[in-house]
Amino acid sequence: MPQPSTASPGAKRGRPGYDQESVLSVAVQVFNKHGYDATSMGILAENLGISKSAIYHHVASKSDLLRLALDEALVPLEAIAEDERASTGSAAQRLEFVLRSTIAVLIERQPYVTLLLRLRGNTEVERHALERRRAMDRRVSDLVVAAQQEGSLRPDIDPRTTTRLLFGTINSLVDWYRPEGPVTARQVEENIIAMVFGGLQAGQSAA
Amino acid sequence: MPQPSTASPGAKRGRPGYDQESVLSVAVQVFNKHGYDATSMGILAENLGISKSAIYHHVASKSDLLRLALDEALVPLEAIAEDERASTGSAAQRLEFVLRSTIAVLIERQPYVTLLLRLRGNTEVERHALERRRAMDRRVSDLVVAAQQEGSLRPDIDPRTTTRLLFGTINSLVDWYRPEGPVTARQVEENIIAMVFGGLQAGQSAA
Repeated sequence: MPQPSTASPGAKRGRPGYDQESVLSVAVQVFNKHGYDATSMGILAENLGISKSAIYHHVASKSDLLRLALDEALVPLEAIAEDERASTGSAAQRLEFVLRSTIAVLIERQPYVTLLLRLRGNTEVERHALERRRAMDRRVSDLVVAAQQEGSLRPDIDPRTTTRLLFGTINSLVDWYRPEGPVTARQVEENIIAMVFGGLQAGQSAA
Repeated sequence: MPQPSTASPGAKRGRPGYDQESVLSVAVQVFNKHGYDATSMGILAENLGISKSAIYHHVASKSDLLRLALDEALVPLEAIAEDERASTGSAAQRLEFVLRSTIAVLIERQPYVTLLLRLRGNTEVERHALERRRAMDRRVSDLVVAAQQEGSLRPDIDPRTTTRLLFGTINSLVDWYRPEGPVTARQVEENIIAMVFGGLQAGQSAA
């Protein structure tokens, strides 16, 4: 759990103890531990070691907190499509760029992406986030179709299933990858790209 | 949601309306929708359309219900290792058998496996189920090591990561595969085996 930050005189939010970022960082852990539905503002306050009214200094409501936490995952994920490399080169190159960048964001923003991937869609904020996630899935799906059409990807697996398998493999990272473990972020990125394009069988060519 | 069954005179549990299996089937849906922590016996009773005391006719507690629901996933998953094909042939053949069988159970027992995969480990029942899951992971990890040693699997990805990627890919099924959709269970099984062993790149040999 992060230590309360020492508020600097110029800090945007004057309340000493926590800034919004620290509140988000603790809230996302609590949401992931108990589930969003099961997390009350009381449980959050307890975990933050501050009063409920002090939380309301930072955010208007629990759903506001959820929205801000989800943005920590969605904004960098959506930025990938804006990068020049997502729209230059062959479809296979663009797809590889998007997948590598997605892996990097997942590792860097792990708790926030975990929250995003576990959303159940029971509230408006959740449904809106899921809609943004689906839009990203569609962009990757279009790249998969283009890569199959240009002859880079095997045509015998339908593009929808290919997309699901790619995201399934990559998204699983948030459940098992530990940055403090023996495998570096760079290695795991190479390993995933090697498996999904080249396969695990010995003697397959690397991607 | 399943219709209440018509209790036959010889039924193990005499209470008309629901048998234990139907209670489990509804309970697992509610757990998956709201999260186990957020599901009260009251919410369960509401979804079942029966009273709380009627639920206690079937199970002793919410954690008892969880334990029974998890067994619906764990028992068939653990049975895979007991099959003769899990211990005959090359390590690559045994691994492929275990992966194909796992995919089949995931599709057949989708809601129960979803529950298992989303466990947070906050209670004793959850921790015990996670321990059984880890034991299965270790058996697959051993097969991966053996397959690398016999030269069937590429040696440049460490066995632990290989195992995580295999399970990551396969487990993702529960989040996206819909039996009523256009892709058959058999197809998706072939697609996964093709990707993980052969890779998605055009011109890679099939597994």
